[in-house]
Amino acid sequence: MTDQDFRSFHPPQRHLLGPGPSDVSPRVLAALARPTVGHLDPAFIDMMDEVKLLLQYAFQTDNALTLPVSAPGSAGMETVFVNLLEPGDKVIVCQNGVFGGRMRENVVRSGATAIMVEDGWGQPIDLDKVESALSENADAKALAFVHAETSTGVRSDAESLAALAAKYGCLSIVDTVTSLGGIELRIDKWGCDAVYSGSQKCLSCVPGLSPVSFSERAAETIRQRRHPVQSWFLDTSLVMAYWGSGGQRAYHHTAPVNSLYALHEALLMLKDEGLEQAWQRHALNHAAFAAGVEALGLSFLVAPEYRLPQLNTVLFPEAVDDAGLRRILLREHNLEIGAGLGVLSGKAWRIGLMGHASNKSNVLLCLTALATTLHGMGLGTDAAAAVRAAESVYAA
Amino acid sequence: MTDQDFRSFHPPQRHLLGPGPSDVSPRVLAALARPTVGHLDPAFIDMMDEVKLLLQYAFQTDNALTLPVSAPGSAGMETVFVNLLEPGDKVIVCQNGVFGGRMRENVVRSGATAIMVEDGWGQPIDLDKVESALSENADAKALAFVHAETSTGVRSDAESLAALAAKYGCLSIVDTVTSLGGIELRIDKWGCDAVYSGSQKCLSCVPGLSPVSFSERAAETIRQRRHPVQSWFLDTSLVMAYWGSGGQRAYHHTAPVNSLYALHEALLMLKDEGLEQAWQRHALNHAAFAAGVEALGLSFLVAPEYRLPQLNTVLFPEAVDDAGLRRILLREHNLEIGAGLGVLSGKAWRIGLMGHASNKSNVLLCLTALATTLHGMGLGTDAAAAVRAAESVYAA
Repeated sequence: MTDQDFRSFHPPQRHLLGPGPSDVSPRVLAALARPTVGHLDPAFIDMMDEVKLLLQYAFQTDNALTLPVSAPGSAGMETVFVNLLEPGDKVIVCQNGVFGGRMRENVVRSGATAIMVEDGWGQPIDLDKVESALSENADAKALAFVHAETSTGVRSDAESLAALAAKYGCLSIVDTVTSLGGIELRIDKWGCDAVYSGSQKCLSCVPGLSPVSFSERAAETIRQRRHPVQSWFLDTSLVMAYWGSGGQRAYHHTAPVNSLYALHEALLMLKDEGLEQAWQRHALNHAAFAAGVEALGLSFLVAPEYRLPQLNTVLFPEAVDDAGLRRILLREHNLEIGAGLGVLSGKAWRIGLMGHASNKSNVLLCLTALATTLHGMGLGTDAAAAVRAAESVYAA
Repeated sequence: MTDQDFRSFHPPQRHLLGPGPSDVSPRVLAALARPTVGHLDPAFIDMMDEVKLLLQYAFQTDNALTLPVSAPGSAGMETVFVNLLEPGDKVIVCQNGVFGGRMRENVVRSGATAIMVEDGWGQPIDLDKVESALSENADAKALAFVHAETSTGVRSDAESLAALAAKYGCLSIVDTVTSLGGIELRIDKWGCDAVYSGSQKCLSCVPGLSPVSFSERAAETIRQRRHPVQSWFLDTSLVMAYWGSGGQRAYHHTAPVNSLYALHEALLMLKDEGLEQAWQRHALNHAAFAAGVEALGLSFLVAPEYRLPQLNTVLFPEAVDDAGLRRILLREHNLEIGAGLGVLSGKAWRIGLMGHASNKSNVLLCLTALATTLHGMGLGTDAAAAVRAAESVYAA
């Protein structure tokens, strides 16, 4: 056991333009640090009810089974799969990046079979391929797909995919980790049956919570299970008894009290701004950033019509020292951008403009920092031109 | 979707003397609210390494596989069971309160069989019964027990139980949720193989994290698994690759960055005080509180030799309006104490003096508030006598 001398940790103040976590507002950090109360305190229980209502607004749903799982997005994903699936079930899983692959892992570990529908990294999910898979697998229980692929920056057509699932009598399982709060998402209107998200992307809350929502059809599927859910911690029937309305709470686990204060505040900020206004803000800042990126002579992995405004996958020339550049951005500008994941490693950056971090000053900072750092590496990039291009979008 | 008008949540300032969460120090809340950094930021990775070292100190272990699971204690429990067990395994589970029963749930949902050894609520685990079960079940893989039962306030003899497990070639699985930081716990010296705990009891960190530690024997058991771990989120081989030392981190999930700042600070406070000093502080405040409780004419569920100093289960007369009293304590004194759980519901309170909350001012506040409230309910309790009894312990 260690003899090391330890001190309090004082993190640097970064600009978080990676794939998440995004910058957390001082309002949310202040809420986070309020005094801890008991998880059965009447004041806290009232706040939990408000969190549910605010989440319903963010997801655009009236689903009663809407709540934040007390763990990160990966646990939210697992919550959806282990509750809906039973051994022997078959699920059609769309993969066009890292997170479709992770869905597959969840299907398999639930004792079910995954039928994969694959598209290229940087491409949206192909509706025709999905329809073929649905018609060839009449016994499939669910169609699972990622709305906003964090590994590539691609938006898939969740509305049409959910409609296809419904047409073939399948449940739709939708990963909205990076979409919630950043682009249009209307889970009731679109008929999404089971969705999960994360707190630390476009909600700009601290990482560690995973909002989920289940339609009545999905909830009924859970009630009709023949086998118990393999996870005790993620069993929604137990979690729901804990999050149930009014005074009746069955103890399940100790809620992460302070993180829920923060989520409440982040959702309140989203409601105060308005959901559609938040989507428009993400779109505008992306447009300005994209204009600047192109002025720098760089290009995007994803075609404009499928691009996520909150996650920009920017390709860079082979001559660029990727890790070196990111180190300089961090050290000299306190600016974090994300590395490419999987096949995009060493070929692209993932630059997030998510939630609270999606603002003009971050757009201009990032363009300037990229331009000067690339210039320092001998690439003839022009910061002034990039800033002018971005400014012209804001002025329009 | 709601038309309700929402406001920022400002929790009341409570004194948390329930079964957890306990009062969180302002130092820890300040750490919690520091600016969020990326979970792959070099500064954060260095801090994660320190958290591991500080946890090794708290657990008194050199186990390399020691880390905080990114979710509450229930998830830590599940982490231990789903990683160590495979379908068909047999586990001897000791139950002398709520949490032994929860262990059984975890065993069964892992596809294994639980052989139950039961003792009364308020009794410690009987070593003879455990030895009989071990000798009758030579094929058992593990012995699982709770060191400090949060539902009853009983301490069981973890050292002897771990030794019995080793004698019969079993792994020992130990619930230390309420013991860590509050009473003697030395997992290397005692030979405990797999332990889990919680952040919000005697560590007085915010709820939402679950420290776990696995001995080399337990780690080897995991490496030799024939089936994949049923949970992707809790799969230690993936989690460890993420928490691995140095610069090599395999992305698994987004760590709850700010909660880990808080855990770092809480562990630092424990190290600054000294583990044995913290145990002594818990013992002293319990002794003073117990003297006061007895001066009030109330008694304890648990015999002194098995009593947890950090969780006092106080029996109350049938005439007492339990819920009414706890409501008055909360409303008039901002004092939270815990209700009885299971068979103790309506018969006992669970009064925590855990971590940061284990101090003289809380002891005196709680005795005074109990005495005056009981007095107001027509029970002839004498606050002054209770305070004098407690003071005499501090003076001794």
